[in-house]
Amino acid sequence: MSAAGSTAQAIACRPIGHVRSRFTDPVGMPIQTAGAADEAGSVELLPEFEAGLRDIEGFDYLILITHLHQAVEKLEVVPFMDDSSHGVFATRAPARPNRLGLSIVRLVRREGLLLHFLGNDMLDGTPVLDIKPYVPRLDVRQTERIGWFGKRIDQMPDIRADARMA
Amino acid sequence: MSAAGSTAQAIACRPIGHVRSRFTDPVGMPIQTAGAADEAGSVELLPEFEAGLRDIEGFDYLILITHLHQAVEKLEVVPFMDDSSHGVFATRAPARPNRLGLSIVRLVRREGLLLHFLGNDMLDGTPVLDIKPYVPRLDVRQTERIGWFGKRIDQMPDIRADARMA
Repeated sequence: MSAAGSTAQAIACRPIGHVRSRFTDPVGMPIQTAGAADEAGSVELLPEFEAGLRDIEGFDYLILITHLHQAVEKLEVVPFMDDSSHGVFATRAPARPNRLGLSIVRLVRREGLLLHFLGNDMLDGTPVLDIKPYVPRLDVRQTERIGWFGKRIDQMPDIRADARMA
Repeated sequence: MSAAGSTAQAIACRPIGHVRSRFTDPVGMPIQTAGAADEAGSVELLPEFEAGLRDIEGFDYLILITHLHQAVEKLEVVPFMDDSSHGVFATRAPARPNRLGLSIVRLVRREGLLLHFLGNDMLDGTPVLDIKPYVPRLDVRQTERIGWFGKRIDQMPDIRADARMA
């Protein structure tokens, strides 16, 4: 398979559900779930995927892969946490090729097709493409090499989004 | 936006690059990067996305979101780490709707469009849809509520994939 050939071939995803959230405008939103521990939201799964939820109640945290449908695509961004520009793959900015989001949320309760969670940093209506259980043995890495985040990370919980990525 | 309306509307993604790996067959592969710390691989970025890599060398770990192109789609699976069936969203099985993979790899070196890494659990040619820097303050959660993984997690480093997801 040549790289050029694959570029031409789009990969079709479809929503498995949608986020229900009090946020309808990116401006003023938390920029990360880690800065929004008390923000409630829910995932409303589409009925045809219900069988995939079996046993999910056993997990504290879920990883949501989402489509950041209101973001634009950029290769260089000034992220919310900094005032200088970086390559977008060195940031967590929503304005990125494919506009895929990653939110680690705390599962509070399942109610049929609804997953109620805390840690909401997503807009209402955000399409959810995948749900994976968070397992520390698989997902935790310890490192202090965090690039440009190093000088800004302590401000993260208080920073909110503005209009620059939309 | 109604959920039904969005289902009908596919979300088009395209590769930003591809994984280069010694693995060409799922059978015998590591099932998680956390069980493959010494496995080398690389991401070959497509040239049009190069600007997005600026400053990425500052990070130890990267999160790759991939398209598991050789997996099938299932809603219920017997995962590699267990012998009973679970809803796929309560597992990390590749055989899932949208077939999105999440690999946390250790960046060893950037060489132009190539990102050399350790922690390879991916097939050669796997399309990469996104690269995000791993930042513990954003990505680490501590929990012991890990569902069915609880009884199996110690075996994870030694378990290898078989043909059941392909």
